[in-house]
Amino acid sequence: MVTPTCGVRPVDDSRHRLTKWHDSGMRIEVLAVGTELLLGQIADTNSAWLGEHLASSGIDSHFHQAVGDNHDRIVLALRTALARSDGVIVCGGLGPTQDDITREAIAEVMNVPIDRDDSLVGAISKVFSARNREMPESNLKQADVPRGATPIPQVMGTAPGLICPVGQKVVYAVPGVPYEMSEMFERAILPDLLARSGEKSTIVSRVIRVWGLSESGFADLLAPRIEALDAAGGNPTIAFLASGIEGINVRITAKAGDRASVDSMLDAEQAQVIALVGDAVFSADDRSMEEAVAWSLLSAGLTLGIAESLTGGLVASRLVEVEGASVWLKGSVVSYASEVKHTLLGVPQGPVVSDVAARVMASNARRILGSDIGLSLTGVAGPAEQDGRPPGTVFIGLALPGEEAESVELHLPGDRPRVRQYATISALDLLRRRLADYTAIRP
Amino acid sequence: MVTPTCGVRPVDDSRHRLTKWHDSGMRIEVLAVGTELLLGQIADTNSAWLGEHLASSGIDSHFHQAVGDNHDRIVLALRTALARSDGVIVCGGLGPTQDDITREAIAEVMNVPIDRDDSLVGAISKVFSARNREMPESNLKQADVPRGATPIPQVMGTAPGLICPVGQKVVYAVPGVPYEMSEMFERAILPDLLARSGEKSTIVSRVIRVWGLSESGFADLLAPRIEALDAAGGNPTIAFLASGIEGINVRITAKAGDRASVDSMLDAEQAQVIALVGDAVFSADDRSMEEAVAWSLLSAGLTLGIAESLTGGLVASRLVEVEGASVWLKGSVVSYASEVKHTLLGVPQGPVVSDVAARVMASNARRILGSDIGLSLTGVAGPAEQDGRPPGTVFIGLALPGEEAESVELHLPGDRPRVRQYATISALDLLRRRLADYTAIRP
Repeated sequence: MVTPTCGVRPVDDSRHRLTKWHDSGMRIEVLAVGTELLLGQIADTNSAWLGEHLASSGIDSHFHQAVGDNHDRIVLALRTALARSDGVIVCGGLGPTQDDITREAIAEVMNVPIDRDDSLVGAISKVFSARNREMPESNLKQADVPRGATPIPQVMGTAPGLICPVGQKVVYAVPGVPYEMSEMFERAILPDLLARSGEKSTIVSRVIRVWGLSESGFADLLAPRIEALDAAGGNPTIAFLASGIEGINVRITAKAGDRASVDSMLDAEQAQVIALVGDAVFSADDRSMEEAVAWSLLSAGLTLGIAESLTGGLVASRLVEVEGASVWLKGSVVSYASEVKHTLLGVPQGPVVSDVAARVMASNARRILGSDIGLSLTGVAGPAEQDGRPPGTVFIGLALPGEEAESVELHLPGDRPRVRQYATISALDLLRRRLADYTAIRP
Repeated sequence: MVTPTCGVRPVDDSRHRLTKWHDSGMRIEVLAVGTELLLGQIADTNSAWLGEHLASSGIDSHFHQAVGDNHDRIVLALRTALARSDGVIVCGGLGPTQDDITREAIAEVMNVPIDRDDSLVGAISKVFSARNREMPESNLKQADVPRGATPIPQVMGTAPGLICPVGQKVVYAVPGVPYEMSEMFERAILPDLLARSGEKSTIVSRVIRVWGLSESGFADLLAPRIEALDAAGGNPTIAFLASGIEGINVRITAKAGDRASVDSMLDAEQAQVIALVGDAVFSADDRSMEEAVAWSLLSAGLTLGIAESLTGGLVASRLVEVEGASVWLKGSVVSYASEVKHTLLGVPQGPVVSDVAARVMASNARRILGSDIGLSLTGVAGPAEQDGRPPGTVFIGLALPGEEAESVELHLPGDRPRVRQYATISALDLLRRRLADYTAIRP
């Protein structure tokens, strides 16, 4: 048994702590259009994405709205938004069907007619001919532009976006398809917004991910650095968000005259954060824990075999999400019934939620699956206790090449699904840390 | 090889098709409160939930809004909502912290002072003493009630809800915690709304779930029934929604003078739907596919062992979500690497994406894991092809007690994660259907 170094009371609190953002002074409202949003038939992920990306560029968003596919109500929602914000980003309603009426509503708010744009007709026709498909007449509607608006050309689909001046304010229209929306926002809308706000700088964010520290412990570690940055004028800024079972996300945002200067500011600040937080940082480029593990295994040239019980296949199923997992992942023995631990994994008779069981499971996973490394999990997901252990008790076993298996005991909070999720990421994090030590002494 | 009866081109389209709902004539706006929503730090699932549940009770929701933890802006959002709707449901901002200011904003809109309610103080204190915890002074704030409002007692947490009349209109306040919100909506808000709308009837919905039919195929089967219901006055109503990897959800809504009458209408309509759709119905009470499988196994008194490859543990990890899974689930061998299929599962040398491999995997999972039934999956998740098979090719093997293993070949659409998800639910559905046949001939 070694002292636990991971999973110590993981964070379970999604309250935000933000340092002061640099502030553009602009307030932009997000308006999602679609009856299916109001009916709860699809979740509105666009508004949250836009809110996050506006904030990280120093643009406030004080209100969000959603409205159905109804002309008068879209007009009313646009007028409401323009009355209380400096501009609006409208998502959705730019498709070719009868229900897609965002263009008409914007034209009414602008009080202008709609013209068909010949160059857009050409671009849309091209998309269809490139796919050897005939263009339905209805798609021509997507070439309609309220007079005075500037189209944002499409690069992924057929619906162009729009930049529509309304007095001193502005309405941006983007398709509701998330990847078309985000691409257009970054390519055309954000630069236009920053130009309008008088912002000449390049602003870039980078996300660093941390596991194994409580939110308050992390805040204490970082507090002096955040204070120093604030005192020095708040560029770059650091903000962090505890995201429960995925640990803590730390967003560093820097502003400078050009991209190269921003990148070198981000590099320097990232190094500062890593120096303060140490190996609790598992990703410096928003990679997931499974991608971090994949990278460690690939770099070490080692393969992995798993034996899991309470997680029931979660550990393996997260790992196979990484493309190319077959290079380093042999498989997993999911021994949910105790007898399978005894018969297939050779765990001696006795309690199966124990450090002995975890170590034997790790060693034998390595042997049975023919891998270099064995990783195991046994524990109590709840609600009932098992082997006299309360829910949340988890043993993680790890057998590295040519080494005896070790085990770590964790006490995890939460209900059944949460204990499983915490156990999964804790096991992956233990593997990642031990691999770093292992390869450090065997270069 | 048998003819595939499941997974035939699963639905991948979330467009809604609704029959005309009965209409209460009321329009209720949902207002979500919380700066973290605007910053995209947490997703707003409450608004979608409320939108769906309002619609299924015949109440329209024409607009949703989100606003941050700012007094003036909450007041503005409330006034905006009251100007264009008959009432508002406000979610969030009822907690004990400084940021929780929904009560104060509502009091301003009502133009009334706030009183501390002694019976609420008692109820909140009791929650803490029952948990042997001291109550922080700040929690007393949750006993504050705008004069003229009616508190909705809490049964799950500490924050009471509020029913606040504003002229002829109404503001409901509920906590942002999803399970507290939904419980309060069903217990107190919906009955109050229906009473206000003059609705004296009881309205209840039931969700039936379907797998293995395309949306258009399903629509064709159900069309005559929906037309007949519409012609007969639209009570009950049937609406359905294709929800991608979870199949099709069919919502039957009935209205009658009392609960017993509603239930018997729902029972009768459910029987009609099942008669039209057959065994593609896997759940008549909104149960998940894994719960349906658990029920089949429990009723048959049989245990399950799994061998999975491309799904990497997903099948097992879905099944262990069902409480009490240890009664019927032995475990799973996740044979991600081909050599594990050969060595541990005894698959003969040769292609591992094949019907032979699936059948051997199922038989040997049954043997190795000591279960009554063996279920297996082998296939190509993509992006590259394997054994000359294109991505989406999946073989499911099934070995029932005392029977030779069979296998089913599927061709599933979508990218890597989607192929895995479709393969998982298709395998569970095959097991559910075969178990129904198996137990039918062995009563």
